[in-house]
Amino acid sequence: MKIENPNPINWRFAERAEQLQASFIREILKITQQPEIISFAGGLPSPLTFPVEEMQAAFDKVLRDNGKVALQYGPTDGYTPLRQWIADALSVDGAKIVPEQILMTSGSQQALDLLGKVLIDEGSRVLVETPSYLGALQAFSVYRPEFKSVATDEHGLVPESIDAVADGARLLYSLPNFQNPTGRTLSVERRQQLVETCARHGLPLIEDDPYGALSYKGDPLPKMVAMNPDGVIYMGSFSKVLTPGIRLGYVCAPLPLARRLELAKQAADLHTSQLTQMVVHEVVKDGFLERHIPKIRQLYGDQCQVMLDAMAQHFPAGVEWTRPGGGMFIWVTLPQHINAMQLLDEAIAQKVAFVPGAPFYANEAATNTLRLSFVTVPPERIRHGIEVLGKLIAAKL
Amino acid sequence: MKIENPNPINWRFAERAEQLQASFIREILKITQQPEIISFAGGLPSPLTFPVEEMQAAFDKVLRDNGKVALQYGPTDGYTPLRQWIADALSVDGAKIVPEQILMTSGSQQALDLLGKVLIDEGSRVLVETPSYLGALQAFSVYRPEFKSVATDEHGLVPESIDAVADGARLLYSLPNFQNPTGRTLSVERRQQLVETCARHGLPLIEDDPYGALSYKGDPLPKMVAMNPDGVIYMGSFSKVLTPGIRLGYVCAPLPLARRLELAKQAADLHTSQLTQMVVHEVVKDGFLERHIPKIRQLYGDQCQVMLDAMAQHFPAGVEWTRPGGGMFIWVTLPQHINAMQLLDEAIAQKVAFVPGAPFYANEAATNTLRLSFVTVPPERIRHGIEVLGKLIAAKL
Repeated sequence: MKIENPNPINWRFAERAEQLQASFIREILKITQQPEIISFAGGLPSPLTFPVEEMQAAFDKVLRDNGKVALQYGPTDGYTPLRQWIADALSVDGAKIVPEQILMTSGSQQALDLLGKVLIDEGSRVLVETPSYLGALQAFSVYRPEFKSVATDEHGLVPESIDAVADGARLLYSLPNFQNPTGRTLSVERRQQLVETCARHGLPLIEDDPYGALSYKGDPLPKMVAMNPDGVIYMGSFSKVLTPGIRLGYVCAPLPLARRLELAKQAADLHTSQLTQMVVHEVVKDGFLERHIPKIRQLYGDQCQVMLDAMAQHFPAGVEWTRPGGGMFIWVTLPQHINAMQLLDEAIAQKVAFVPGAPFYANEAATNTLRLSFVTVPPERIRHGIEVLGKLIAAKL
Repeated sequence: MKIENPNPINWRFAERAEQLQASFIREILKITQQPEIISFAGGLPSPLTFPVEEMQAAFDKVLRDNGKVALQYGPTDGYTPLRQWIADALSVDGAKIVPEQILMTSGSQQALDLLGKVLIDEGSRVLVETPSYLGALQAFSVYRPEFKSVATDEHGLVPESIDAVADGARLLYSLPNFQNPTGRTLSVERRQQLVETCARHGLPLIEDDPYGALSYKGDPLPKMVAMNPDGVIYMGSFSKVLTPGIRLGYVCAPLPLARRLELAKQAADLHTSQLTQMVVHEVVKDGFLERHIPKIRQLYGDQCQVMLDAMAQHFPAGVEWTRPGGGMFIWVTLPQHINAMQLLDEAIAQKVAFVPGAPFYANEAATNTLRLSFVTVPPERIRHGIEVLGKLIAAKL
């Protein structure tokens, strides 16, 4: 049935498709998944923390009790009891969040894409931290914004630096808790300032919070969405507290925006798996996360400490790094003249991997930075990997 | 912690977000889900066909044998054994499809969104059937194309009518088997002509095929992708042959396009649930669908016949309708002066619902058309509902 001599197609892609780049991290992951490599490159949670049995029991129960509903098409905004559970969980610090504000998404990456789709025109100004989360830069880039990087220091984003770039900006994207890639946390004072500054400019503020529950000690800092529910868009995810492979996240948005996001979601994929949402609700509804999350905190906190101790021992003077209070990442700043991309080549030759920092910058990149994750590497291998890196760095001084 | 007197945000949405409209069908569904309404409006498969026990067993097995992998992040392009299975299933009629061409998506609605994202610039010409699938019009509309409707008759799209509108077009979207909304099937001769015509113009041809397996009798007609694998983009779905609530579809694209789609997917939601893909592979890998699909065909074929018989009995002269060879829909053309939207109001007052045809037209709409689905309504209620509609129509003559 084949037709004869078809013309080959001269593919013409949309202009936005020319912006599409493979995530550098996902490319590195392909190289570093060989078991002999000690990889600090991953952004993957530790599978040791996945509650496989609980998930299995919940799939069994939902399919047994409610299979025909779970396997049918569902509403675009999501499974109502789960949206109610999330709204209740976010209604703290005096905030009153209603389920109508919650849109369930296929991982919080999809919330980023939908936000870009609904808020960003070509050339729109978009404010991001310096450095910022790579997945957000990727998602927003498709819609061809003009990124402006806002200054950041050890306490996170510097609110005063917003005034100079706020004019006409469509949104400010922030990741206040244990930021990816730096591990930094925005201080309470800065949160209040940031919310006030954005409100003064009428600037929508995105609070992306995948790691907020993973503080090693002490309570989480107050959420910005509670300070101004009409101006802050909150993004959450089950990837880091339950499991990422099921792809379940959510966005909590002020109502006018929530409605637009729902329509965009409908056109994008109709809805997120009804079965997955019912199963996650079944798992979390009776307080499972309150028993489960402390185990994740303990594991990650211990391994973070192992890495920090090893760095103190093996990294030469002149190297600086963050000391995260939670989450999955440490950020390293090398002496100015060392290029982390070159260091990566040498490290891979010695079976150690990490992610160079440059891809995390929307504008001018600091090429002497890198990101390390400690969550999927056992302590002995953390120590050995850091020792290898320390020697490679020392050789460049 | 709330800040004092925040400025309300004066929401400014992206221009493309102004295109976003709620699916008329999903809006009707909200009205017609009351159990007392006989609804021919749905596009939902019958839950009687959902293989709940097989899904439950597969979730159990995958989580037990491979839980940590199933619950971890996975590759953007999808679960390799499932992509291989799909590539093998598509390698018929002399075609050789490789897994690298297959991208797993969150339902085939997501494939439509990704295709729009990668192929459509603002103002790009996009060719569609008359009428066409509403979900495709919705997905593409976000990217603001100029739609051109290609003529269609009882044998499907008319290939000769492409020449006049092909110039500069970015894609032609077709649904050749038991089309949604008309139930029509593109004849074999037309398939060959259509593929040749598109190849001559270097025009990418989308072959959307969610219902292809649901023929009531006889073998499915040859796929167009087999006639020109370098020029045809094939879309498939597990929604109509397994279950829709899990949101699993795929697109098979020529390699240059497949790579772009993968990058767009990465930015859109990283990947589709790894667990869902492993479970579906577990269910389908040993020939389950070959035993299961005949049951769906039988049920839908019987109910379609009940509706056709009732229409012959109750619909007055001057009303025309399609006689589908498979799938889920019958398309009705009323006498010119009857407006299906008004008929819907009267029908709902008598507890019967359907979808008016107008929203399925990209350009000028035939307001005297409507779509009926028979798959989720038992025979007795089909007969009664058609009788009610017949009387309402007769009263307008």
